[in-house]
Amino acid sequence: MLFKKEHLDEIREYLKKDNLKGYLILTSDPHSSEYVSPFYLSFRNYFAPFSGSAAKLLITLDNAYLSTDGRYYIQASKELEGSGINLVKEGLESLEDDIILKKEIYPLGTSFNLINELDYERLVNKGITLVDKDYSFLIKDRPSLSKEKVFKLDSSLNTLSLKEKLDYIYQKLEEEKVEANLISSLDDIASILNIRGKDIPCNPVFYSYLYVSKKYGNHLFIDLDKIDFELNNVNIHPYDEIFNFLKEHENVSTLIDKTKSSAKIYSLLKNKVNGKNPSYLLKAIKLEKEIINTKKIQAIDGLALLKFHKYLHDNLSNNLTEFDYSKKLKEFRLSSPLCFDLSFNTIAAVGSNAALMHYSPQEVGSSVVNKESIELLVDSGGQYYGGTTDTTRTFLIGTPTKEFIHDYTLTLKALIGVSSTIFIENSDGHTIDIKAREFMWKEGMDYKCGTGHGVGYILNVHEGPNGFRYYVSKDRDDQGKLVPGMITTIEPGVYKENKYGIRIENNLLCVNAFETNDGKFYKFETITYVPIDTKCLDLNMMSDEEIKWLNSYHKLVNEKLTPFIKEQELKDYLDKLTIEVKR
Amino acid sequence: MLFKKEHLDEIREYLKKDNLKGYLILTSDPHSSEYVSPFYLSFRNYFAPFSGSAAKLLITLDNAYLSTDGRYYIQASKELEGSGINLVKEGLESLEDDIILKKEIYPLGTSFNLINELDYERLVNKGITLVDKDYSFLIKDRPSLSKEKVFKLDSSLNTLSLKEKLDYIYQKLEEEKVEANLISSLDDIASILNIRGKDIPCNPVFYSYLYVSKKYGNHLFIDLDKIDFELNNVNIHPYDEIFNFLKEHENVSTLIDKTKSSAKIYSLLKNKVNGKNPSYLLKAIKLEKEIINTKKIQAIDGLALLKFHKYLHDNLSNNLTEFDYSKKLKEFRLSSPLCFDLSFNTIAAVGSNAALMHYSPQEVGSSVVNKESIELLVDSGGQYYGGTTDTTRTFLIGTPTKEFIHDYTLTLKALIGVSSTIFIENSDGHTIDIKAREFMWKEGMDYKCGTGHGVGYILNVHEGPNGFRYYVSKDRDDQGKLVPGMITTIEPGVYKENKYGIRIENNLLCVNAFETNDGKFYKFETITYVPIDTKCLDLNMMSDEEIKWLNSYHKLVNEKLTPFIKEQELKDYLDKLTIEVKR
Repeated sequence: MLFKKEHLDEIREYLKKDNLKGYLILTSDPHSSEYVSPFYLSFRNYFAPFSGSAAKLLITLDNAYLSTDGRYYIQASKELEGSGINLVKEGLESLEDDIILKKEIYPLGTSFNLINELDYERLVNKGITLVDKDYSFLIKDRPSLSKEKVFKLDSSLNTLSLKEKLDYIYQKLEEEKVEANLISSLDDIASILNIRGKDIPCNPVFYSYLYVSKKYGNHLFIDLDKIDFELNNVNIHPYDEIFNFLKEHENVSTLIDKTKSSAKIYSLLKNKVNGKNPSYLLKAIKLEKEIINTKKIQAIDGLALLKFHKYLHDNLSNNLTEFDYSKKLKEFRLSSPLCFDLSFNTIAAVGSNAALMHYSPQEVGSSVVNKESIELLVDSGGQYYGGTTDTTRTFLIGTPTKEFIHDYTLTLKALIGVSSTIFIENSDGHTIDIKAREFMWKEGMDYKCGTGHGVGYILNVHEGPNGFRYYVSKDRDDQGKLVPGMITTIEPGVYKENKYGIRIENNLLCVNAFETNDGKFYKFETITYVPIDTKCLDLNMMSDEEIKWLNSYHKLVNEKLTPFIKEQELKDYLDKLTIEVKR
Repeated sequence: MLFKKEHLDEIREYLKKDNLKGYLILTSDPHSSEYVSPFYLSFRNYFAPFSGSAAKLLITLDNAYLSTDGRYYIQASKELEGSGINLVKEGLESLEDDIILKKEIYPLGTSFNLINELDYERLVNKGITLVDKDYSFLIKDRPSLSKEKVFKLDSSLNTLSLKEKLDYIYQKLEEEKVEANLISSLDDIASILNIRGKDIPCNPVFYSYLYVSKKYGNHLFIDLDKIDFELNNVNIHPYDEIFNFLKEHENVSTLIDKTKSSAKIYSLLKNKVNGKNPSYLLKAIKLEKEIINTKKIQAIDGLALLKFHKYLHDNLSNNLTEFDYSKKLKEFRLSSPLCFDLSFNTIAAVGSNAALMHYSPQEVGSSVVNKESIELLVDSGGQYYGGTTDTTRTFLIGTPTKEFIHDYTLTLKALIGVSSTIFIENSDGHTIDIKAREFMWKEGMDYKCGTGHGVGYILNVHEGPNGFRYYVSKDRDDQGKLVPGMITTIEPGVYKENKYGIRIENNLLCVNAFETNDGKFYKFETITYVPIDTKCLDLNMMSDEEIKWLNSYHKLVNEKLTPFIKEQELKDYLDKLTIEVKR
């Protein structure tokens, strides 16, 4: 299944036969998922040696290009070395404009089942002729689709029942004057049904389509082997039946989100209204039970990270690798009966590896962490019966340089900047992003990624429409208005190639601050409870308010974690980590 | 010509005859101008007693509604009293959604020559049937259209010649693969041709259309009486010829901006591409000569305001009114041979009048300013051969309350917040706006308007695409990326109904800060040179950096104005106003 240069030649034979100038392979599935199952991922991996989560691969008759974003520039240029595939740095260059359009790589083949409608239309509107071709049959030893059963969430885990969610959707459809809603996005479906699955690692979703209509009934399309219970008021059909079903219902006025539907599905409906699924915002705004449960499992997750922190410092003489540590952290997390998976592959990176934003240590070849290491950056999270976490800490080990101390302090200032902002209703992440970056910008520094993203509830670790970004990115849906109940990460960082990487990340719950004659005001409550290493802070760079914020955060962390701690040694360790800092 | 209730009944007779449920009068002209000539303004004024610059008037068979935005809530509710016309507060309510749609006021008449295409489409897409009707013939004693001559700008006033600007447009049209560009927006036309006019008070534009095409020639449509010179490479036609001309060229592929074109003009083209006119960004980015000239006339404008400041304090015992003061300020400005008009009606407001954001004192009934007055808020600007200014100062007179001191200091902090920001390329006003509002938001305060707008060059005082706003407003085009050469106002304020209003406004030129490995960084250079009253600042609310900013700004103001001052008394006054403050 691994990439070989010959695979590109195999596809080129078909390009010639089918009179195509190129073939486009996206990292995608029929549901516009950000992370896809091994079955779907194998399509890109068979033709390109790149292990990141986001990339587009273009194969032409005599060349090949892989485009990825700023998170992966360094990693991709290493992994593609010798493959004959050129790296296109999205943001600086554009695969579509600078390669496909400029070199006129069309007619261009791609699978209409794997490209979403929005991307499809964008390419077509640029004058690129697209042809529906699926060359995935070329993949040898392809992993099979998951047969894992889906499972119902206990009613203590959901504020709203399936019935209440369907009623909400009916009401929104009525307001939009449509009769039905076709939902392709897997996290929306899981959220509406209050069930979860295991089809995509770290993403507790299951491949399916959901059709919601008061008039035509509710219909779930799913591999029947995966579900062994019935659902009130929802008919269950085999997964592939969706195509026939939609043909039979092509004239029903249907709400469909073109950013979340394949071009193939989209083309089947004749009387459609493009728009966000009502479930999209419903899922993003966490209600009472979701908030209580998330806070509880965040403390449990914090305990795992505290144990890990201690383990790291107790084992610095043992020459363990980044991979060993990430394995150990997984153990700590899964030791809680509430944790059933990680929420993404753990990033555990030492020194220059940490400069690669999304470095994931592999069993073979990952770096050793020892007393000489300056930092171990760990970005990780868990899936719990009670919520989803996403936390980064930069653990300090050896003696840092002045530059490192400076950059670490800047990163913390950025985190505090957003965390302590008060903002008026109708603000979005675009409004607030500068509160993280302003200190870095004053010094000509910037990190090449968003400042944060929405987090699901026992669901995908990336979720819209909330997020922090300082400009409008058409490809990302992270400029939704912030409203109480949304959970967003704040994860500023400093990345210095071949030197080090620093990132500190918390999860912020949007809550009401106060209401005055001038409007409603919101603020953030931090719901990640993990000590922030204070060993190498330059307190002279911090304002009194920032130091106060840090101390009161550590008081909160101590209070939240203490009830879960049994051993005095661990409690002492926590007390030491959360001790008040003073200038 | 003044409003009478009977005028509404006259229009209702025609509604019945034409089988319409309502009639919509916009504050508009065929060129989507923000400010319109007395001829066009008379349409709304004949049917509603409101003197603000922005409003929509809806007349139904048995009712009438005037909708306006937050700047005018208080003013409109006063002026409409007893008229039988209901006020609709846009932002809190919506004329379209809450009145026209909910009450089904359609078929709805309106003039297709006076509604722009974007508004037209928005209404139609909501399901509102529009009928092209022009009832302006009902207006008695209507002001006539201007016959003022247009005038060429001296070549020292423009960095680019007409030829260079046309070449730039040709190039952009080629890139967009279209053959022509139809320009309706008057400031764009004036900017391209390097000529100015006097058709709209305070806005040095002239009613015209411009058609630019390398293949089909360049054509200006204008009242021939108004132009007594020829233009290189531009054919001149009578204004009304535009309709026949477009019919003859309906199949030429033409770039047209639907936000700036009337529905009537837009409908005439068969092969159109909707998009921004190339002249739009070209006009917003000021080049070498524009910047040098603007800085020079800003100093001259600052001198007028300094003289005014002294005059105000010398005359507090004379019971002069707001109107008297605004007249005097106009005199000071026009005493410079470079000043040829104001850039908008001067706002001069004392006490509670200043809480009305856009209050404009009238000859009869304006308030007296005396030693008991706390503040005189003056928002004003001039049109100069060399640039356009827009400055607000809140002049402090009597003894302010603690609350006033607090709010005045907050306002200055907001101004300094934006003025001292350093930001990365691709940032826009949405990115930066919070740097003004954050201190107010922390206290549950907010001002109900944008923080700033682009300023033209010897042109309209409001210009896109730059501006500061914390959310996306579909109706306003002020979220363009900030680039060096753009001039934007920063004008935060505190408005307390029935108490007082505070606003401080400077003009900021975007300039390069530095370039690093992480990108290009920009900052603002303040180009308004007017002392900021420091008498009632609470310096304990200000950081060391803020105090430093204020002192260095006053040093700059002193340096810029001193060369223009002849009298020692005025120089002493300037020195006193710009003296260093200390905590």
